Amino acid sequence: MTTALFEPLPLQPVGVIHSPFREKFGIPRQPGLLPDVPATLELLPPYDDPDCVRGLDGFSHLWLIFQFHAVSAGQWQPLVRPPRLGGNARMGVFASRSTHRPNSLGLSVVRLVKVETEEGVRLHISGADLLDGTPIFDIKPYLPYADAIAGAVAAYAAEAPAAKLHVAFTEQAREECERHKKTYGLDIALLIRRMLELDPRPAYHADSRRQYGFRLADYDVRWVVEGDRAEVLALVPVSPLK
Amino acid sequence: MTTALFEPLPLQPVGVIHSPFREKFGIPRQPGLLPDVPATLELLPPYDDPDCVRGLDGFSHLWLIFQFHAVSAGQWQPLVRPPRLGGNARMGVFASRSTHRPNSLGLSVVRLVKVETEEGVRLHISGADLLDGTPIFDIKPYLPYADAIAGAVAAYAAEAPAAKLHVAFTEQAREECERHKKTYGLDIALLIRRMLELDPRPAYHADSRRQYGFRLADYDVRWVVEGDRAEVLALVPVSPLK
Repeated sequence: MTTALFEPLPLQPVGVIHSPFREKFGIPRQPGLLPDVPATLELLPPYDDPDCVRGLDGFSHLWLIFQFHAVSAGQWQPLVRPPRLGGNARMGVFASRSTHRPNSLGLSVVRLVKVETEEGVRLHISGADLLDGTPIFDIKPYLPYADAIAGAVAAYAAEAPAAKLHVAFTEQAREECERHKKTYGLDIALLIRRMLELDPRPAYHADSRRQYGFRLADYDVRWVVEGDRAEVLALVPVSPLK
Repeated sequence: MTTALFEPLPLQPVGVIHSPFREKFGIPRQPGLLPDVPATLELLPPYDDPDCVRGLDGFSHLWLIFQFHAVSAGQWQPLVRPPRLGGNARMGVFASRSTHRPNSLGLSVVRLVKVETEEGVRLHISGADLLDGTPIFDIKPYLPYADAIAGAVAAYAAEAPAAKLHVAFTEQAREECERHKKTYGLDIALLIRRMLELDPRPAYHADSRRQYGFRLADYDVRWVVEGDRAEVLALVPVSPLK
């Protein structure tokens, strides 16, 4: 039997994510590590009908099936190097949650905070490790009796990865974080801390005092690592990407 | 923002399911209710490369993202009638795991029994409530720290549905089940019991002594319901559908 026997299934997004993550770099490469990040899922026509989400507010958690849209299609390889294994050992793509995979589908569980149906439909969610603009193909309620498997065994990924770096802020960076929190309500300092303590540097980067940056909300966040300490140097305001 | 801004994502199956379920009727409409059903996931070219599943045998459970392929595309409605609610109350399609949904994607967790890589790649799995021939678009390892949410709340579907019917077998039916088990190793009597005790009849059918049938393995399983008792009348061997 071959794939040629099947017609391709063309997926159309039912919604799109609005989140503070503006680029892949810095987002933890394992799901479920950023429980506090707020995001919004905007349903797209014709799915922006309040009927489509009737009863959804009775569920605390949702599954999202989405596209790793910042990854070029067709870029998958049979073997990947999970960051969990230090970037050295190679595992099969289906034994990982790598973004470089056939069909580019992602799966994340998020907390449902609020369902808003006044103008269109917006789901306020928390814990999504999803890039801004991510296309969502399906939303399903989390069913604990079926989805929460007691005693499941997960080889090399049994536990959440531990923090690797201590995170410090310069005075300027701390002040900008506080200003942002007062204005927008997002605790961006906590978010940066969670992102950096997992050490998002590529495994092959060991050069000390190299300055890194990632886009987060409307900032270019600049940081360095020395030994086991990351320091946030500055949050440089940038104009929105779109 | 509208769906027109997005190119459709064409999905190609990475594998196909071989299971005893030959038609939708009788398969429990909630996931995770048939822990003992064996099935095989055959990887399709070019994914039938042992490298693609390297390390997978360290995981006890897998997520499968699949197509509800026996449902016509475009048949979704904003509101569905979950069988849990007796078929009367209507809920939003995204507040249900209904098969009639935008993009026709399904999500199930299954137990991984064995990885076979001698000729092509076959994953022996258990607990799949999937139709024979189901196209699989992705396989992901189950990560307990991210996927098993302690204390998740699930409105009208908090617990697995309880058995509704007692199940009995005629002498002929019981003998055929025993013959099947001896030949193929599948405890088809237990499987039929699990399927019937959930009462798969459509909610609008109340006519007593109507004879029902469904295809299971290579049988037409004939049964009736009277009061709270289902009786399996016969397992009629039929030639394979393909």
